[in-house]
Amino acid sequence: MTGTPDVIAQAHRAYQAELVAAGLLIPLGVPGLYGRSGVFEVVIEQFERYVTWAGAHLKPEVMRFPPVFSRQTYLRTDHVETFPDLMGSVHTFTGDDRGHQALVQKKAGGGDWARDLSPAGVMLVPAACYPLYPTAAGVLPAGGRVVDLRSFVFRHEPSDDPARMQSFRQREYVRLGTPEEALKHRDYWLGRAKEVLESVGLDVTPAVANDPFFGRGGKVMAASQKEQALKYELVTPVATPLKPSAVASCNCHLDHFGQAFGIRTADGAVAHSACVGFGLERIALALFRRHGFDPRAWPADVRRTLDLN
Amino acid sequence: MTGTPDVIAQAHRAYQAELVAAGLLIPLGVPGLYGRSGVFEVVIEQFERYVTWAGAHLKPEVMRFPPVFSRQTYLRTDHVETFPDLMGSVHTFTGDDRGHQALVQKKAGGGDWARDLSPAGVMLVPAACYPLYPTAAGVLPAGGRVVDLRSFVFRHEPSDDPARMQSFRQREYVRLGTPEEALKHRDYWLGRAKEVLESVGLDVTPAVANDPFFGRGGKVMAASQKEQALKYELVTPVATPLKPSAVASCNCHLDHFGQAFGIRTADGAVAHSACVGFGLERIALALFRRHGFDPRAWPADVRRTLDLN
Repeated sequence: MTGTPDVIAQAHRAYQAELVAAGLLIPLGVPGLYGRSGVFEVVIEQFERYVTWAGAHLKPEVMRFPPVFSRQTYLRTDHVETFPDLMGSVHTFTGDDRGHQALVQKKAGGGDWARDLSPAGVMLVPAACYPLYPTAAGVLPAGGRVVDLRSFVFRHEPSDDPARMQSFRQREYVRLGTPEEALKHRDYWLGRAKEVLESVGLDVTPAVANDPFFGRGGKVMAASQKEQALKYELVTPVATPLKPSAVASCNCHLDHFGQAFGIRTADGAVAHSACVGFGLERIALALFRRHGFDPRAWPADVRRTLDLN
Repeated sequence: MTGTPDVIAQAHRAYQAELVAAGLLIPLGVPGLYGRSGVFEVVIEQFERYVTWAGAHLKPEVMRFPPVFSRQTYLRTDHVETFPDLMGSVHTFTGDDRGHQALVQKKAGGGDWARDLSPAGVMLVPAACYPLYPTAAGVLPAGGRVVDLRSFVFRHEPSDDPARMQSFRQREYVRLGTPEEALKHRDYWLGRAKEVLESVGLDVTPAVANDPFFGRGGKVMAASQKEQALKYELVTPVATPLKPSAVASCNCHLDHFGQAFGIRTADGAVAHSACVGFGLERIALALFRRHGFDPRAWPADVRRTLDLN
C-alpha cells in the first residue's frame, strides 16, 4: 500500500498527538525526542523479558553498553562515509577560566558558542552492536559467540513520526563466527522474531531492506545490499497501514566488522557477524496501536505472553 | 581519612583491574567508559526494584527520559556557566554531497573533521531531572508533584576511578512544590536513603557537599552551596576507604529550576524543587566491594532484600 506524503505525514502527527494526549509520550521540544511514561516502560520491560526467554536456549553472554562509545572505535567503522547525517559527535569545553569567559560571552551575545567546543573522546552509539566489536578483537572460541545487547542508540533524523525517534533502544542478539554460523543466526531469527512478534498480536511481514546510506554514492550501496539480501526487516503498521514501520531487522554483515576490528575464527579466517535487532520503542508503539493505550485491557493471551498480570 | 594522591590513584586502578578481570566491567578504550556484564546489570535492576518499593508510598509519577534532551532546554539552565567542562554537546553533519566529500577527505587526511560538524538540536543529559523541568512549566497541582526518574547522564570527566564514569545511570525522586514541601522531601530522603543503603549492607555516612562548579567563580558558588547546606551526599568506600565515594545525594534546589522554567505552585509563587538521586553504577560497585564479586555468595539478608534468590 502507498499513500501520498501529505496523508502519511498527517497520520504521523495524528498518532503522535494521541500518544501525547494519553500521557504515554512526553514531548521534549525536539522532533523525535520524548519522555516515556511508566506504562510505556512496563510494556518495554515485559517485552524484553519475553525476548530474553526466546533467546535463552542460545546461552548468550549479556553485555550492556552506555549510550556513548569511543571515538576511536567509531573511526574504525565507515560511519562517517556512509551515515554522516545520522551521527552524534560529542563535544565539550576543555579550556581555562579565560576561555570559559569568552565562551559565556559568546553565548550571551547570541553567538555560535557550540562551534568553539572540542570533540570529546566519545560519540553517541549508532547501533547497539558497535561498541561490541573492538572488545571481541582477536581469535574467537570454537563455535564463535552469541551476545545479548541492549543500548540506547542515536540517529539524527528529526521527524514527526512517533516511530522515528532520535534516541531509542535496540535489543540485539549478535553472532560472531564463521560465515555459516552468522548466516544461520540471521535466518533463524528471521523466523523466530516473526513468531515472537506474532505471539504478542502483531501482524508482521518480512521484507528485504536496505540501510539509509547517505548521498549519491549511498544509492549504489543500498542497491547492492538489497541485491545480496543482507538485510530483512519485519514491518507492521504503527502510525498508519499506508506506511508500515520496521520493528525488527535481521542482518548479515559478512566480514565487514570482522575485517575492521581484527576478529578471527578459531581456524584463522576473518570472522563474519550477523544480528537480530528489536526496536523496543517501535514495538511498544505498535502494541499500543494494535491493542489500545491501556495494557490492562489488552487481550488475555497477549497479557499472559508478556506476563502483564 | 586521607591518602596521598598516588596511593588513591593506585587503589582506583587496582579496583578497576579487579572488576575487569572478574568480567563485571568491559573496558571500552576511554577512561571512565565501560560495558556492564549481565551480573552487574542484575544487581542494578534488583536495587532499582528495591528503591521502587521504598518510594511506592509517595505514589510518584514515573517518567523515563532518553540520554539526550533539547539544546534549548539546556540553554535555559546555567550549565554552560557552571559546569562547562562536564558538558556533552551533540554535533552532526547537515551538508550535501559536496560537503560530505570534503568531510571525508579531511578525515582521511588526519584533519580535525569533527570541528566542521554542526551543533544538533540535542545535548547529553547532565542530571536525570533536567529534562523534567520544562515539561512541568505552569501551575502545579495543589500538593505539588513527586516524579520518579531514571536516566543515563553524561559527565565529561575521564578518570581511572571505576566509580567515576563518564556515562552512568541516576535514579531520582524529584519533588516540585512549596519551599516546605521541597525541603521536607530532601530531609525525608536523607534518612530514608541511608536506611535503604544500610539494609543492603553498605556503611554510609552523610556529608554536606558541593557540586564541582567550574573555575575561580565556581569556588565561591561551591562555598555558598556548602554554607547553606543545600546538598548532602551519602558516602561509602568503593575503590578505597581512603577516599569514599558518594553513592546518593539529597539536594535542595530552592527556586533555581522553578525560576528558570516558569514552574509555579497553586498559590502562584515560584515553585521550589528538591531531589534524591541514587548513583546506580556506584551502588553496584560498592556492593561488589562490600560483599564480593559473586552475588550468589552475598549474605542471605542482602540477597533477600534485593530479591536475588
